[in-house]
Amino acid sequence: MSPVPERATLRNTDYAFEMAISNIRYGEGVTKEIGMDLQNLGAKRVCLMTDRNLSQLPPVDAVLNSLTKSGINFQMYDNVRVEPTDQSFLDAVEFAKKGEFDAYVAVGGGSVIDTCKAANLYASSPMSDFLDYVNAPIGKGKAVTVSLKPLIAVPTTAGTGSETTGVAIFDFKELKVKTGIASRAIKPTLGIIDPLHTLSMPERIVANSGFDVLCHALESYTALPYKMRSPCPSNPINRPAYQGSNPISDVWALHALRIVAKYLKRAIRNPEDREARANMHLASAFAGIGFGNAGVHLCHGMSYPISGLVKTYKPKDYNVDHSLVPHGLSVVLTSPAVFAFTAQVHPERHLEAAEILGADIRTARIKDAGLILADTLRKFLFDLNVDDGLAAIGYSKADIPALVKGTLPQERVTKLSPRPQTEEDLSALFEASMKLY
Amino acid sequence: MSPVPERATLRNTDYAFEMAISNIRYGEGVTKEIGMDLQNLGAKRVCLMTDRNLSQLPPVDAVLNSLTKSGINFQMYDNVRVEPTDQSFLDAVEFAKKGEFDAYVAVGGGSVIDTCKAANLYASSPMSDFLDYVNAPIGKGKAVTVSLKPLIAVPTTAGTGSETTGVAIFDFKELKVKTGIASRAIKPTLGIIDPLHTLSMPERIVANSGFDVLCHALESYTALPYKMRSPCPSNPINRPAYQGSNPISDVWALHALRIVAKYLKRAIRNPEDREARANMHLASAFAGIGFGNAGVHLCHGMSYPISGLVKTYKPKDYNVDHSLVPHGLSVVLTSPAVFAFTAQVHPERHLEAAEILGADIRTARIKDAGLILADTLRKFLFDLNVDDGLAAIGYSKADIPALVKGTLPQERVTKLSPRPQTEEDLSALFEASMKLY
Ligand SMILES: NC(=O)c1ccc[n+]([C@@H]2O[C@H](COP(=O)([O-])OP(=O)(O)OC[C@H]3O[C@@H](n4cnc5c(N)ncnc54)[C@H](O)[C@@H]3O)[C@@H](O)[C@H]2O)c1
Ligand SMILES: NC(=O)c1ccc[n+]([C@@H]2O[C@H](COP(=O)([O-])OP(=O)(O)OC[C@H]3O[C@@H](n4cnc5c(N)ncnc54)[C@H](O)[C@@H]3O)[C@@H](O)[C@H]2O)c1
Ligand SMILES: [Fe+2]
Ligand SMILES: [Fe+2]
Repeated sequence: MSPVPERATLRNTDYAFEMAISNIRYGEGVTKEIGMDLQNLGAKRVCLMTDRNLSQLPPVDAVLNSLTKSGINFQMYDNVRVEPTDQSFLDAVEFAKKGEFDAYVAVGGGSVIDTCKAANLYASSPMSDFLDYVNAPIGKGKAVTVSLKPLIAVPTTAGTGSETTGVAIFDFKELKVKTGIASRAIKPTLGIIDPLHTLSMPERIVANSGFDVLCHALESYTALPYKMRSPCPSNPINRPAYQGSNPISDVWALHALRIVAKYLKRAIRNPEDREARANMHLASAFAGIGFGNAGVHLCHGMSYPISGLVKTYKPKDYNVDHSLVPHGLSVVLTSPAVFAFTAQVHPERHLEAAEILGADIRTARIKDAGLILADTLRKFLFDLNVDDGLAAIGYSKADIPALVKGTLPQERVTKLSPRPQTEEDLSALFEASMKLY
Repeated sequence: MSPVPERATLRNTDYAFEMAISNIRYGEGVTKEIGMDLQNLGAKRVCLMTDRNLSQLPPVDAVLNSLTKSGINFQMYDNVRVEPTDQSFLDAVEFAKKGEFDAYVAVGGGSVIDTCKAANLYASSPMSDFLDYVNAPIGKGKAVTVSLKPLIAVPTTAGTGSETTGVAIFDFKELKVKTGIASRAIKPTLGIIDPLHTLSMPERIVANSGFDVLCHALESYTALPYKMRSPCPSNPINRPAYQGSNPISDVWALHALRIVAKYLKRAIRNPEDREARANMHLASAFAGIGFGNAGVHLCHGMSYPISGLVKTYKPKDYNVDHSLVPHGLSVVLTSPAVFAFTAQVHPERHLEAAEILGADIRTARIKDAGLILADTLRKFLFDLNVDDGLAAIGYSKADIPALVKGTLPQERVTKLSPRPQTEEDLSALFEASMKLY
């Protein structure tokens, strides 16, 4: 028998990818058009969702003004939980069901937009159990066949790109792990990207949501290529949203990464640097278009237990009453260890990313690509005063088995890692992320 | 009175742009999924459109196989005219009205996809007059408010990007001028980009459709920026599809241009160079997404009378019985003159484009940007044996007034030129395009 690579014998790999890209509108002050959009949609009962903190801030004001000017009939729900849970999703679903809305508006970061997607989904599918649409193996991962109401997303962070994706993430309290719902059906109808909304963000929210953009770009660019992903669906409707890297997602990932390299530090350090904040706002959508179709891998897969198992960490600048590890922080803290590990596969992409982030690679050897990218990331984080690793946010070696256990069900993303990983590999990655500097 | 630039006083410019991007699926052999897509859509009566030449070729075979395998009930219309006219559109509309279809499949180049868009539109809006949706000032340019049936486009050329755009172009025989219908509503539901279909294209079809990609990229990258476009719509629904260059369309345009620079010559010269043909197939969609939202300008505006006034020119490799100037050829022949003219505004973009197309710009002066890009284009065309200017396809100086007259109603695109143009300017551009080498 001639030696055949494992993949070719065991796997039925996909040969195609699909890009589902939602409409976006960009411009300073463009939020004022939202009332007319809702009129154009013929909306009679609109659900406006946000969180308690944002309900007092300019982005929500701008939306309220526009709705009032256009005479739109709406009800406001400002009970969104920052880093939502199954319980907080269900609370929003309850509100949506009662309201019998014919359109939704989400004004906020990923927490608000994701909650609004879930509210729209379950209100449109009232007979479904909550687990029906939750990703397998945690939920049933059923395909969405009902039709949803229009949802207009107005992002106020420069981070998740949730205005462009068909993903809604929540913390499953019982299992102490984050998971989500993924379907092209929950993609917002329109994302209104108004860079004025980023001006009210405090420093750490800019930083943490910006790290999310960084990881979306790096992970989707280094994800398993679509042609190596398996299984190949027998019906195109079963091709998942996260399909591996491909020539279109690559363009978006690289473009977003270049903007992060150029503007993230400026956006964090100077709240009045409108150019930097506006560019990061757009980069967030760019990276969303990339990872929303290609997927993310280990930083995100490992971040879900890091957030889910949070003990007492309360981040600076977050105006909330519970402990939480902000999503962007939970993904970026493992990034040096992760890319040092994955660079064995496609080292040239890792080196290219390091160069974009400012590394001098003129004399670099390709086999050092992972270490070079890891060093570049550590330096980037150090310069931005990021907590020194998982230890600084309350974890110790004793937590590693639980962190690994929480990563295992995240197959939907971890299997997109270019390099397969064992439980020991995951342990080692968490351990290497305890301290960064 | 202090001096205020003309634009600021006279114009109410737009401050936002909107990107409407359709779903695309890419992969070698992916056409075989189309039958399942139609099943998933629940389609009971499908209209399959193509042209007579393609109906005998592998792309149509592949679609027929898939439809048959999935037991899809369909009727085929292969009467599409290459470079469609109002009459040929109406003929297809007639077929569509009779068939009472619930889904459409277009297999072909821009001629087929555009015809199918028109058939779907008018069959879905049976009370409309043909002129209702035709671009103003030639037609009434009414907004589309009816809902259309799903349309799956399977492009077989690497050119128009029509699978991604809300545009359908035809030759208005009576007026001897090309014009079109432009609305986000006619954008295909899904583009299935199967690079295998490009393998049957003869040399000149690869070349001419590739020139279309080149001009889409160059024109959208150099178009008037969205912030300088006027008027600013009072309702977002009136923001046109062609909005001027913007930070998203720029990414698509540059990326497409890089692929053209790397692969177009290879794709033309070697029908077996699958890598080159596949890359051009994808570049055509990239450029489509860019120009479909940003717009094109003078090469396209001037091309419409060049095609519309055709005398006896019969291009090599086109298996048709009427004279025609292929669209890609009609746009590219004026490109050296056009970019020499427009480079006054944004010369740095013109120089960047020249560099991507292979010019050595290390010692270039920015004020020579237009001449450098023009020379680069001329050399590119010469290397590819392109006809030597408008004279070579049958025009003489005596035709210039008619060519100018035919360009004037193309405001929808010509007003996106970064540099405004008088009738004398247009005359001079046609004259400079009579001979290229
Ligand atoms: N759906 C997706 O594609 C996707 C992708 C990545 C992350 N996520 C999820 O999104 C959530 C994180 O979202 P996020 O990072 O956007 O933050 P967030 O929505 O959790 O908000 C964080 C904090 O910032 C505040 N805030 C938001 N915008 C502000 C502004 N303009 N001015 C002042 N304060 C502002 C909020 O009130 C909140 O207190 C996580 O649950 C994460 O898992 C979703
Ligand atoms: N809708 C838009 O966005 C848009 C943009 C640009 C141009 N257009 C329009 O599209 C039309 C031009 O389309 P085009 O350049 O794609 O060419 P086309 O559709 O006119 O086809 C040209 C010729 O190529 C043949 N052909 C096509 N694919 C083939 C294949 N795979 N193998 C062998 N022969 C093949 C056709 O049978 C035809 O004879 C023009 O009317 C133009 O104005 C539309
Ligand atoms: Fe994320
Ligand atoms: Fe064109």
